[in-house]
Amino acid sequence: MSLPDEHPPGLMAALMDGLRRLPGVGAKSAQRMAYHLLQHDREGALQLGRALEAAVMGMRHCERCHTFTEAAVCSTCLDAARDPRLLCVVESPADQAALERTGSYRGLYFVLMGKLSPLDGIGASDIGLPLLIERASDPALREVIIATNFTAEGEVTAHVIGETLRSRGLRVTRLARGVPIGSELEYVDLGTIAHALSDRR
Amino acid sequence: MSLPDEHPPGLMAALMDGLRRLPGVGAKSAQRMAYHLLQHDREGALQLGRALEAAVMGMRHCERCHTFTEAAVCSTCLDAARDPRLLCVVESPADQAALERTGSYRGLYFVLMGKLSPLDGIGASDIGLPLLIERASDPALREVIIATNFTAEGEVTAHVIGETLRSRGLRVTRLARGVPIGSELEYVDLGTIAHALSDRR
Repeated sequence: MSLPDEHPPGLMAALMDGLRRLPGVGAKSAQRMAYHLLQHDREGALQLGRALEAAVMGMRHCERCHTFTEAAVCSTCLDAARDPRLLCVVESPADQAALERTGSYRGLYFVLMGKLSPLDGIGASDIGLPLLIERASDPALREVIIATNFTAEGEVTAHVIGETLRSRGLRVTRLARGVPIGSELEYVDLGTIAHALSDRR
Repeated sequence: MSLPDEHPPGLMAALMDGLRRLPGVGAKSAQRMAYHLLQHDREGALQLGRALEAAVMGMRHCERCHTFTEAAVCSTCLDAARDPRLLCVVESPADQAALERTGSYRGLYFVLMGKLSPLDGIGASDIGLPLLIERASDPALREVIIATNFTAEGEVTAHVIGETLRSRGLRVTRLARGVPIGSELEYVDLGTIAHALSDRR
């Protein structure tokens, strides 16, 4: 306890270090969060601590679709009302949730939990591609819909997955690119308009 | 496990709820943080969980200056090299750290751990005012420097503390208001220039 207080003492420094592990949280935010929790919400801090431990211990990947689940197979994969002929490949559970909210898809999913990013050292096995190939060998399957994001990395991921599955004789489609509903052409980026033109129907 | 996956299962929901207790973290950020930790940094999640529990259990308020400390009295208050005639009142440990970094203050501190905010129900006892009054009764003390922030709430806090301590016969000063070093008058707000004019020396 002989350090000057500008170096926060051990437990506080450990807490700030821990908070900085969260994505998007830098030194300033971590400090603000630590002081807030200790000053105003110790119960919340304990609750978060317990939730972190329970989630790390209890959450694993679904054996069929690779999403996070507490059981061996997630509830979506077990849902008998879903169409087993359709498999939609998404990058994350958040993307899956967005598709679910549309209410217009009743097939099954495969969640990559990431995207190909060779520059960051994220290769095919990191995003569960071997598991996807195995999953796609399901004889009930008629079509794989690739719904990775329309970013550079999402497009590369879509390309690699598409090539891999097509070479196995599967029908592979991609979400349509085009002008978003409600937008005015004047304010839509040129790449989107060009795609909407070439994919016109 | 019969819920659709757009409602994340129990442990995931609990983790997102826990993360939302952090200041500045909404539903979207909490979701992103939860997926990141479970997918890419389970060790970090455990480390954060342990740090939270250890900090809640181990951190308390310094008996003299009210800041966070693991001991009964913090290292700053115990530092015999500091001038016991000066007491600087700040809102937070972060403000104290900013003053320390200037290297131009060698007195002691009192950390309010907040600011008066009647609209939010934060009154004098919530910011340790009774402890400050007790601390200010130290016969060694010659001057109390109020260094609360120059915001509306910080100014109200400074005013209340100033009145309270002055009525007890103490010499109370306030950090100078004025034009920041390196700034051009053209871009300084009018209130600051007006203060700099009236406080000219």
